[in-house]
Amino acid sequence: MVSFRKYPLVLAGIISFSTQAADWQALPEVAPAPADNPTTAEKVELGQMLFMDPRFSLTGTVSCNSCHNVMLGGEDNRPVSMGVHAQTGGRSSPTVWNSAFNSSQFWDGRAATLEDQAKGPVINPIEMGMSEIEEAMNRVRDIPGYKPYFEKAFGTDNPMTVDNAAKAVAAYERTLITPNSAYDRYVKGDKKALTEQQLRGMESFASLGCNACHSGAAFNGPAMAPGTGFFMKFPTFTDNDYVEQYKLSEDTGRFTVTGKEADKHMWKVPTLRNIAVTAPYFHNGSVATLDEAVRVMAKVQLNQDLTDVQVADIVAFLYALTGEFPEQSMPHLPPTPGRSIIK
Amino acid sequence: MVSFRKYPLVLAGIISFSTQAADWQALPEVAPAPADNPTTAEKVELGQMLFMDPRFSLTGTVSCNSCHNVMLGGEDNRPVSMGVHAQTGGRSSPTVWNSAFNSSQFWDGRAATLEDQAKGPVINPIEMGMSEIEEAMNRVRDIPGYKPYFEKAFGTDNPMTVDNAAKAVAAYERTLITPNSAYDRYVKGDKKALTEQQLRGMESFASLGCNACHSGAAFNGPAMAPGTGFFMKFPTFTDNDYVEQYKLSEDTGRFTVTGKEADKHMWKVPTLRNIAVTAPYFHNGSVATLDEAVRVMAKVQLNQDLTDVQVADIVAFLYALTGEFPEQSMPHLPPTPGRSIIK
Repeated sequence: MVSFRKYPLVLAGIISFSTQAADWQALPEVAPAPADNPTTAEKVELGQMLFMDPRFSLTGTVSCNSCHNVMLGGEDNRPVSMGVHAQTGGRSSPTVWNSAFNSSQFWDGRAATLEDQAKGPVINPIEMGMSEIEEAMNRVRDIPGYKPYFEKAFGTDNPMTVDNAAKAVAAYERTLITPNSAYDRYVKGDKKALTEQQLRGMESFASLGCNACHSGAAFNGPAMAPGTGFFMKFPTFTDNDYVEQYKLSEDTGRFTVTGKEADKHMWKVPTLRNIAVTAPYFHNGSVATLDEAVRVMAKVQLNQDLTDVQVADIVAFLYALTGEFPEQSMPHLPPTPGRSIIK
Repeated sequence: MVSFRKYPLVLAGIISFSTQAADWQALPEVAPAPADNPTTAEKVELGQMLFMDPRFSLTGTVSCNSCHNVMLGGEDNRPVSMGVHAQTGGRSSPTVWNSAFNSSQFWDGRAATLEDQAKGPVINPIEMGMSEIEEAMNRVRDIPGYKPYFEKAFGTDNPMTVDNAAKAVAAYERTLITPNSAYDRYVKGDKKALTEQQLRGMESFASLGCNACHSGAAFNGPAMAPGTGFFMKFPTFTDNDYVEQYKLSEDTGRFTVTGKEADKHMWKVPTLRNIAVTAPYFHNGSVATLDEAVRVMAKVQLNQDLTDVQVADIVAFLYALTGEFPEQSMPHLPPTPGRSIIK
């Protein structure tokens, strides 16, 4: 297996074994937006409403925020999420915080953009459970108070479309950025922002090769053309007990989207931003604690057995990636006067 | 049946047949608080967090706000609410807006105060589903970031108790007041605040006797000692098709709490504030629209068959009871770093 041990390092080609030389980047305070959906205050306002509104789910009980709770770490702290009629799937909700910096969306990268992603859960039978995306959109259209918000955001020429709703949600999500973590302050020059233990963890993170995959400002890989996606095989090393214990190989990842043999067990490299507040861990939420997640990652991706000190150091470093969650107002959702649109 | 037709009027004893003479009151902008739980900014801040936090439910998916959604009309727009594991009960969520003005809580008045009410749904097996209230409180205690909020609100001597959590939630709920409806502005002297149709509806509302029960500032009965409760029989007149059509007599109401024959089909008189935005209607959510709810109420409570014009006028008046929903910030809920507390 020796030849594989440095595989991620070779692949990335940019890794050095010191924190100085690694490409440490602070999180941008503004996310890039696609040319056809520039971020505007009007879209963000509308998008937040749609994101918070449970009425577009079959039962009227599940909103985007139910599983991607922006009052928490942008997800639900559950192993796998619970959609309409208490159904559960096989994957854990990724955080919506800093999702603007993902080069593809969903664990298997099946959506190229936030705009595409926003439409998926609405018609997933175990998530929001609507049978057709237009059926969900008809619920939006049935709420008279939404119309002026769509008109402000998209003009008066047929603004209430699925694409525009998705654009608004994506525009809102692009504002969900958590800057000014201790790590960011350190990278920007405040050398006291990290503790000695965190600095040791940062050094270990680089020297072990964690940032071969978890690189860049969001620790989710290199900047790539939108929709390209940055995927890695997980688990890479399967000759250990963790794979069975945590069922790491049961889900074939990107293969479920493409059907290509080469995509078996390929997964989007997730951000490590705010990883301390998004337990439990991995695509299936099978690992309960961050300590164990670090231990498992080192073994199944790098074939390394970490010491307890190394684990503690790296965990301390990962805590330094928890940023500031910007203040938000709570929207008042437009009503349907005199009746309910929930069936 | 003639002798019963004026029953509510006789009971209230204060009804006149003109809007001038009826006891029309604007909604207070501040709710009274019990002597042992004065409202403070610190309690309100903590209470809002607890109200929004789904982690104290069995599945981690149901918060107070799930069924009493303050981004909507303070409830969920569903006939009956949906708790953990998608379970449903027989009653429709009452609105939390202006619940501070209820003289008892729950449809059957089984809680005297907001403080008592707050503890109920947590351990209701079909609502939040925790087996013991202390088990829920242990989840709160497991979140280190909550401690400073409890200390700020309740001091440093063992502040993290069930009673204090309930006090905080109640304090938050006492801020959920919707003043400045068109009706309130009219009552305060702005004679142009109501349309002519709304004024006709207001006149009908009084002349028919609706405000025999729906009296006072919150249209939920007279001011009473806290916990006394103001209950009325519903349906009063059962010799009509509505009772069976909408299953109005299946639930025996307050009898389920007291076991007293006299309490059979007695219900707390609910507020009519924001009634236009809290469809569907009645304790079992069986009536989909406000028009029909007005028609049914007139028949089963007053034995009156309203004309379409009367219904439209009264509905127009009820729309005038939709107040201003105060702006709120969205709390950032304290995390459990490195792990999840959801089982």
